Amino acid sequence: MQKNLLTISKFVAPEIIFGLGALSQVGESAARLGIRKVFLVSDPGVVNAGWVEKALSYLKEVGISAVVWYNLTTNPKDSEVAQGVNRYLESGCDGIVAVGGGSPIDAAKAIAILATNGGQIKDYEGVNKITSPLPPMVVVATTGGSGAEVSQFSMIVEKGRRVKMAIISKSLIPDIAIIDPLLLQTKSTRLTAATGVDALSHAIEAYVSLAATPLTDVHALAAIRLIASNLRESVACKTNLEAKSAMAMASLQAGLAFSNAILGATHAMTHQVDGLLDLHHGETNGILLPYVMEFNLISCGDKFVHIADAMGVQTTGLGKWKAAEKGIAAVRRLFRDVGIPEKLSQVGLKEAHIKELSANALRDACLVTNPRDAGVEEIEALYKRAL
Amino acid sequence: MQKNLLTISKFVAPEIIFGLGALSQVGESAARLGIRKVFLVSDPGVVNAGWVEKALSYLKEVGISAVVWYNLTTNPKDSEVAQGVNRYLESGCDGIVAVGGGSPIDAAKAIAILATNGGQIKDYEGVNKITSPLPPMVVVATTGGSGAEVSQFSMIVEKGRRVKMAIISKSLIPDIAIIDPLLLQTKSTRLTAATGVDALSHAIEAYVSLAATPLTDVHALAAIRLIASNLRESVACKTNLEAKSAMAMASLQAGLAFSNAILGATHAMTHQVDGLLDLHHGETNGILLPYVMEFNLISCGDKFVHIADAMGVQTTGLGKWKAAEKGIAAVRRLFRDVGIPEKLSQVGLKEAHIKELSANALRDACLVTNPRDAGVEEIEALYKRAL
Repeated sequence: MQKNLLTISKFVAPEIIFGLGALSQVGESAARLGIRKVFLVSDPGVVNAGWVEKALSYLKEVGISAVVWYNLTTNPKDSEVAQGVNRYLESGCDGIVAVGGGSPIDAAKAIAILATNGGQIKDYEGVNKITSPLPPMVVVATTGGSGAEVSQFSMIVEKGRRVKMAIISKSLIPDIAIIDPLLLQTKSTRLTAATGVDALSHAIEAYVSLAATPLTDVHALAAIRLIASNLRESVACKTNLEAKSAMAMASLQAGLAFSNAILGATHAMTHQVDGLLDLHHGETNGILLPYVMEFNLISCGDKFVHIADAMGVQTTGLGKWKAAEKGIAAVRRLFRDVGIPEKLSQVGLKEAHIKELSANALRDACLVTNPRDAGVEEIEALYKRAL
Repeated sequence: MQKNLLTISKFVAPEIIFGLGALSQVGESAARLGIRKVFLVSDPGVVNAGWVEKALSYLKEVGISAVVWYNLTTNPKDSEVAQGVNRYLESGCDGIVAVGGGSPIDAAKAIAILATNGGQIKDYEGVNKITSPLPPMVVVATTGGSGAEVSQFSMIVEKGRRVKMAIISKSLIPDIAIIDPLLLQTKSTRLTAATGVDALSHAIEAYVSLAATPLTDVHALAAIRLIASNLRESVACKTNLEAKSAMAMASLQAGLAFSNAILGATHAMTHQVDGLLDLHHGETNGILLPYVMEFNLISCGDKFVHIADAMGVQTTGLGKWKAAEKGIAAVRRLFRDVGIPEKLSQVGLKEAHIKELSANALRDACLVTNPRDAGVEEIEALYKRAL
């Protein structure tokens, strides 16, 4: 039995609506929460794909009007959130619907915080800083990666400090999460790969997290299995609905796992690179994860064998360490197959950045649950190995 | 990939607090829901074990007063619920805390329904008959079996008709579920066995249910694995806290599975026997489950192989049907080892009852999701085989 059966743990999830065509539930869901006028947060890509228009028609069917706002970029910035909340407050809306990937969902959560709690978004960096309840919130996930549809996280870049802040609170879990695999078809090949890699990094970091519980473990391992056997196919073909459905389910389960077990050093380090270079979070995670797995290996070898099994490695007859290493190799192989770069230097990082990044990573809330102690020297060494 | 990835499904769970000593969270949990005066529902056994007194002290610490009500029996009756709601309404309480197993939790849910919706409890039999929101509700589970702490079910016996009614609605999911394995130590050996068998029947029926989804599957299989390797030890020794923790986790995961995937013919048939003879639900399930598994086998052989694997059967090299049958044999062996009777005649059922029971079972909401079609002839044949 795992040691975590013997400590008190919490597990929270939103109401989940999953399946092809589930977007059709957005109107009824908003109505059920008592929303009369929706502030709909999205991004330009999702708007262009036509999903916002579809969502609006379902809202209209149940008599809900909407103000649409999508003035934001990848890795949403504090300034964008400030603009968004002004627009929310002047709009007379009484609830929020987000349609998109991690960026619009995280921005919607940040807008919700400021709408009822006031102040600036940086006031809420860290764990449990939110005191007033948020407006009702329905989230429709379009990317099959971020897990933001079920998580208690919002990641916002503070432009002044060039860091990505982790805001963590149970009140950031949306009331209703809608996951419709149909919406994954309009993503670019590169975004499909990056978000799938993001989901795998959530699942693996949650599984080895110091805060993992049996409830998070089952979802983390299920997500790893689904990603190992569906991400390549999903990247290969936009219309492969079986692969899209499996990846949407994997992202959801990885989200349930990491929202409750938190993450580790990969995310603590990735957040800093994202903040500095404005890269896609999933690609940065993909570069760093194998190096962090190698570093974490000695802290929980058995768990790494389970990861290898879930990745599809034949571990029977191999010793523990050999099996665990083959699991890490399988992760590397998968990432290479879907076109993720192997080194941080390929995405523009310089050695001169590493000191500042390492200092910031040490302050990231995700580092606390990493299974192996990591001080500034270890973090610097990891950045250098991945450079 | 499972076919259910391609249909729209919902998954709902309460906030979950799990672990040794988690009872200490009951005061803070009730306070967080805004409750000022608690209607505490329990049963005589739980009161005698001292858990209600403990719960009251934690409520008092946060300034919450309480009215305690535990005037109920196993398989709570409609008349008991009617008395309970009168007591609730005259008490001036503004929220409900249940401390106990399936019976007090189901009674608390039924009281909550009538408190805000009025009428008689039989008005709510079936699916989604509740229209007004219920009072805030915290549930502390003491038995490691019922799963009622997380489920959208309440089972109440209508004495006049001698049937156990299934009331099913999302609003029956408590706001917060507290599961403290310490509380499992004061159960009798017989109740430990019966509730553990109940949990296994939830997990297996949810896993083969027509409404199963990938989210319910991971919890159902995890529950089966935990029960296969911990129920015997839990029955053998009251103070084996590792086994109690594992069984509490198994019950919780089986509850998450069946609350969202619903159940099958075993429960549809058991409810009628419980209503007629006032037996412990877990024992009746234990008698009927192996017979229903044999009947259901041809509907989903592969799933039965997964069940066999989770039961610890070495299935490698066996054909599908042989492996599946060994899984059923492993369930029978486990039930025998923990002292569950093998025949309904041993618990007082007569052949003369079967016609009435079968007619009632056909109307039970749980039959709808059974994976093999079952009409009145099939149900009668199953009762006879188990007699």
